[in-house]
Amino acid sequence: MCLPATLESVSCQKASKGAHRLSRRTLLAGGGGAAAAAAFPATASAVRPAKHRFQDLTHVLTEGFPVFTFDPPTRETLTTIPGDGFYAQQWTLAEHAGTHVDVPGHFIVGGRLAPEITPEELIVPIVVIDISERAARDSDTVLTVDDLRRFERRNGRIPNGALVCMDSGWAAKVDDPLAYKGGPAFPDYHFPGFDLDAAMWLAERRDVAGLGVDTLSIDPGNSTTFPVHVDFLATDRYGVENLKNLDRIPPRGAVAYVGLIPLQEGSGGPSRVMANW
Amino acid sequence: MCLPATLESVSCQKASKGAHRLSRRTLLAGGGGAAAAAAFPATASAVRPAKHRFQDLTHVLTEGFPVFTFDPPTRETLTTIPGDGFYAQQWTLAEHAGTHVDVPGHFIVGGRLAPEITPEELIVPIVVIDISERAARDSDTVLTVDDLRRFERRNGRIPNGALVCMDSGWAAKVDDPLAYKGGPAFPDYHFPGFDLDAAMWLAERRDVAGLGVDTLSIDPGNSTTFPVHVDFLATDRYGVENLKNLDRIPPRGAVAYVGLIPLQEGSGGPSRVMANW
Repeated sequence: MCLPATLESVSCQKASKGAHRLSRRTLLAGGGGAAAAAAFPATASAVRPAKHRFQDLTHVLTEGFPVFTFDPPTRETLTTIPGDGFYAQQWTLAEHAGTHVDVPGHFIVGGRLAPEITPEELIVPIVVIDISERAARDSDTVLTVDDLRRFERRNGRIPNGALVCMDSGWAAKVDDPLAYKGGPAFPDYHFPGFDLDAAMWLAERRDVAGLGVDTLSIDPGNSTTFPVHVDFLATDRYGVENLKNLDRIPPRGAVAYVGLIPLQEGSGGPSRVMANW
Repeated sequence: MCLPATLESVSCQKASKGAHRLSRRTLLAGGGGAAAAAAFPATASAVRPAKHRFQDLTHVLTEGFPVFTFDPPTRETLTTIPGDGFYAQQWTLAEHAGTHVDVPGHFIVGGRLAPEITPEELIVPIVVIDISERAARDSDTVLTVDDLRRFERRNGRIPNGALVCMDSGWAAKVDDPLAYKGGPAFPDYHFPGFDLDAAMWLAERRDVAGLGVDTLSIDPGNSTTFPVHVDFLATDRYGVENLKNLDRIPPRGAVAYVGLIPLQEGSGGPSRVMANW
């Protein structure tokens, strides 16, 4: 088939190895990746999974990304295309940098570590509970059992096995570390998190896979004892921190893909998190 | 509801903050995470996405994981639970360590970088083409257009927009870097990869999202000019390297989730890759 304006038409016109080289030159002459993207729409005619809407919930993992206590990520350029024929960087980063997962072993001796968290736990329904209006007035607010009950009255029962996320509007602050942390250094942080009772209600009554937040911690920033980390992770579930775009997916009905990197003996790790519905 | 042997029954018996502490102590007394997992089956009663089978396609990212040319990953322990109340590691690693994605900008000036690869390109049908019998006899074998045509005769047309993967049986060698690389150092490597014509056939005729391999490179190990990296990535598509368990998913019909970490200006990055069908 040679349909106009599709890749098929390109391939119908070009069939030799020479054409491969020509197509690359032609594509890249106009400005590299952008031109290539225009000429070769990688997904335009793709057969898609049943769910057709997608949202990235992951911050770009930058040099200097705000971190709770460890050093921010750093990078160096290892090779360049002009110098070496290919480009690559090297990163030095704590397991809790950027959008990432905390696994039970982060706080619990003998708790499961990053490689032990299974795909069945990482591909799950995602639920978003919006407390952004209250958080705009009070940086120390927490998501409570009352918030969960109110959510269920409006949206129906939270499905078992879900990733239940707090949307506090905090993701918009990520480029300003002082605002994102709500203070210069621990223990002077102020940002929203989960109340312990709400976290345990979700573990015990809704058998959740994990908790997600758009802040630096599943505990609120002003906590110095980290009860959600201690008690919720002890139920053998995980937390996802530094999510974004939670206001761009439905309150329920999407599937989350939590792409935790299985770092050896990892206490967690950077994760690409995406929603599909 | 208080159903026996479910989390609901636990929550029915325990409703106070004191119970949270009790449940944690009780859970952890028996051996930490394993005991917690047994008492709190995180996924047993979960409402699942429509597809019920899952497979992890990701190697554990270990210290010393075999790399093509850069230094292997290293790690250090930052904090411990006995010493600091929580456990965390720090990693130093090239963007091409472990199961990872190569983006167009790895070889193409102006090509897209890691944060620019979209969820629509990363949640896609996955197809597996088995050349393991031939690879067992010939480490330098490549996946050819003939292999693709033979696959389609047996399995039907490769869907547009898919991640098309070579299963060469190489993942089983990963714990022996010399065997996995097929030689001590570049340019003396020997492992299977994609033939250029096959890679371009997939780009031009099947509009694939990307190529996947269970080896260190989408080009075969004995290549010194990397034509698949140069010409295929120039079509604005990606490659996934160091996959595993490709023999444990159907040849077609599964959906891949390619969890590329969006490293700032990344030439690629570690990725959790999972299949669901």
